[in-house]
Amino acid sequence: MSILVVGSVALDSVETPHGSVDAALGGSATFFSVAASYFAPVRLVAVVGTDFAEEHVAFLRSRGVDLEGLERREGKTFHWKGRYTGDMNEATTLATDLNVYAEFDPKLPAAYRDSDYVFLANIAPDLQYRVLDQATRPRLVTADTMNLWINTAKADLLRTLQRVDILVINDGEARLLSGEANLIKASRAILRMGPSRVVVKKGSHGAISLTADSYCVTPAYPLEEVADPTGAGDTFAGGFVGYVASAGAADERAIRNAMLFGTALASFDVEDFSLNRQRALTRAEIDRRVEELREFVSTD
Amino acid sequence: MSILVVGSVALDSVETPHGSVDAALGGSATFFSVAASYFAPVRLVAVVGTDFAEEHVAFLRSRGVDLEGLERREGKTFHWKGRYTGDMNEATTLATDLNVYAEFDPKLPAAYRDSDYVFLANIAPDLQYRVLDQATRPRLVTADTMNLWINTAKADLLRTLQRVDILVINDGEARLLSGEANLIKASRAILRMGPSRVVVKKGSHGAISLTADSYCVTPAYPLEEVADPTGAGDTFAGGFVGYVASAGAADERAIRNAMLFGTALASFDVEDFSLNRQRALTRAEIDRRVEELREFVSTD
Repeated sequence: MSILVVGSVALDSVETPHGSVDAALGGSATFFSVAASYFAPVRLVAVVGTDFAEEHVAFLRSRGVDLEGLERREGKTFHWKGRYTGDMNEATTLATDLNVYAEFDPKLPAAYRDSDYVFLANIAPDLQYRVLDQATRPRLVTADTMNLWINTAKADLLRTLQRVDILVINDGEARLLSGEANLIKASRAILRMGPSRVVVKKGSHGAISLTADSYCVTPAYPLEEVADPTGAGDTFAGGFVGYVASAGAADERAIRNAMLFGTALASFDVEDFSLNRQRALTRAEIDRRVEELREFVSTD
Repeated sequence: MSILVVGSVALDSVETPHGSVDAALGGSATFFSVAASYFAPVRLVAVVGTDFAEEHVAFLRSRGVDLEGLERREGKTFHWKGRYTGDMNEATTLATDLNVYAEFDPKLPAAYRDSDYVFLANIAPDLQYRVLDQATRPRLVTADTMNLWINTAKADLLRTLQRVDILVINDGEARLLSGEANLIKASRAILRMGPSRVVVKKGSHGAISLTADSYCVTPAYPLEEVADPTGAGDTFAGGFVGYVASAGAADERAIRNAMLFGTALASFDVEDFSLNRQRALTRAEIDRRVEELREFVSTD
C-alpha cells in the first residue's frame, strides 16, 4: 500500500490578510506527502536546490516520508511568491522562480517503481505521463492539474488523462477543462476524457465526486477564519489518496470516507501558514474532525 | 399543525436561456403554499386583482390551500417581469408592476389567527411585524427577506427579526444583512439579531443551517439543466416549514430532514417554468428525491 507522489518541493513567500511568511516550506509534493503520511508510507520524487534547509528534510523524515527520490541539484530551490486577498479563493502570483525545478525530469528510484498508489501532483502533463511509464504496476493513479496546463498543454493533458483513474481538481479547473459552466455537466465531460472518477473541490462549499453511476457530496469544514489557503488542494489529495491506500480499496465507500479525510486535513492546513499547523497535528485530531463532518450531514 | 403564509400572489413574465412564459402564476406565497401543501394544511393571505384567472384559484384549491385570506381587489394583480442569464443565480428585474399589491395590508381572517406555523414571505418587514401582531399563538415563526428591505428598511427588519425563530435567506442576503463575507461569521451575526436559527441557501452548493450550538449541511440536488429558478427559495421554504409542521417538532433532527424536503421540492420547481412541474408532482416523487439526497452524503 505504498504511495508515490511526484511534484514540487518549494519555498513559498505568501501574504494574506492574516500575515505573511518568507521562503517557507511549500510545494505540491510536500503538502501531499505530509497529509498522506498519516495513513500510509509515502515515497516522494521532487527536486530541490542546495539552499534547501536541513530542517525541512528533517521534518519530512519525521513524518516517515521516503526521500530517496528527492533529488538535490546545484542551484536554488523552486520559489513561489503569492498574495491572497478578499475571499482568498485564488492567489495572485507575484513571482515564480523555477530555479532547479526548470529542468525537473522525474526519475523513479528502482525501489519506487512498484508503488501501488500513484499521485501525479500539479506538474507538466508530459512529465506526469513519463512518470506513469516508469511505474510498473500502479493499482490506482490519481492526478491533479491546473489552468496553466489546460491552457498551454491541453493535448499532453488529454493524453495523460487516458491513464488516470481519478482526477482531483477545483471547480474553476473543471469548468475550464470541460468548457461547461454546470459542474455536473463538467464532471461528466471529464469522465469522457479517461478518468473513471472525478473529484471537484469547491473550497468553502465542500467537494463532490462523480463516476458513471455514482454521485457524492462532502461538506466543507466550517471555518470562520482562513490564515493561508496555500496547499489546501494538495493536502486534500494527500488525505484522500492516503486514506484510500490505507483502506486497500477504492470502492465507493472507501472513496467517500477518503473525501472526509481529505477535507479534514485541508481544513487544518489553512488554519496556519505553510505546513505550520501540520507540525503538531495528530491522527486523533484528524479523526475527530472527520466525525464532526459526518455529524454535519447526519439526519438521524 | 396549520401553516399560515403571508406574501405575494403574482403573475410572472420570465425569460431564461431555456424559454419564456408570460403572465404565468407566481408569487412568494404561491410557491410556498404549493410546496407546503404536500405536508400540512396551508392558509394563505395575499391580494390579487380582478384579472386573476379562476384556473389559478382552482389549482391552489386542488392543492388544498385555504384561500379565505386571498383578498380580491379592484385592479390588476402584481406583475413581475424578469430575465435570467448566464449561471442564472440572479434575476434581472425588467418591470415590477405592484398594482393592487401596492396597498397590501395583510389582515388575518379570524380562523387563521391561531395558526401554529407562520411563514412571513418576502414582504416589507413592517407588514411582517403586523402579521405577527395578529397571530395569537404561533409555535414557530419562519421568515424570508431580500436585499431591497435590507437596504431600505433595515430598522424595520431588525425589529421584525426579534420575533422570528428561523430566518431562511440566500448567501448573498446573509452577507449583506450581516456585513460579513464568511458565511459562518455571517450566520452567527444574524443569530445575534434575534432568530435562534438561520438557514442559508447556496443554490447549487446546497444549504447550511446554524444555531448557537449546531451546524448542518444539506447537499443540493444535482441538476444538469435549470429551466427557471423563479420560486426556488419560496418552494424550499414551503417544503421546509411544511415538513416541520408535519413532524410536529422543530428539533435538530426534524430541521435537518426538513432541509432535505425543502431541497427536493426546490429541485423540482426549477425543472420547469412557473409552477408547471408542481402540477403533476406527487409526494412519492418528493420522497424518492429525499432518499437520493440522503444517499449522496452517506458514507456507510
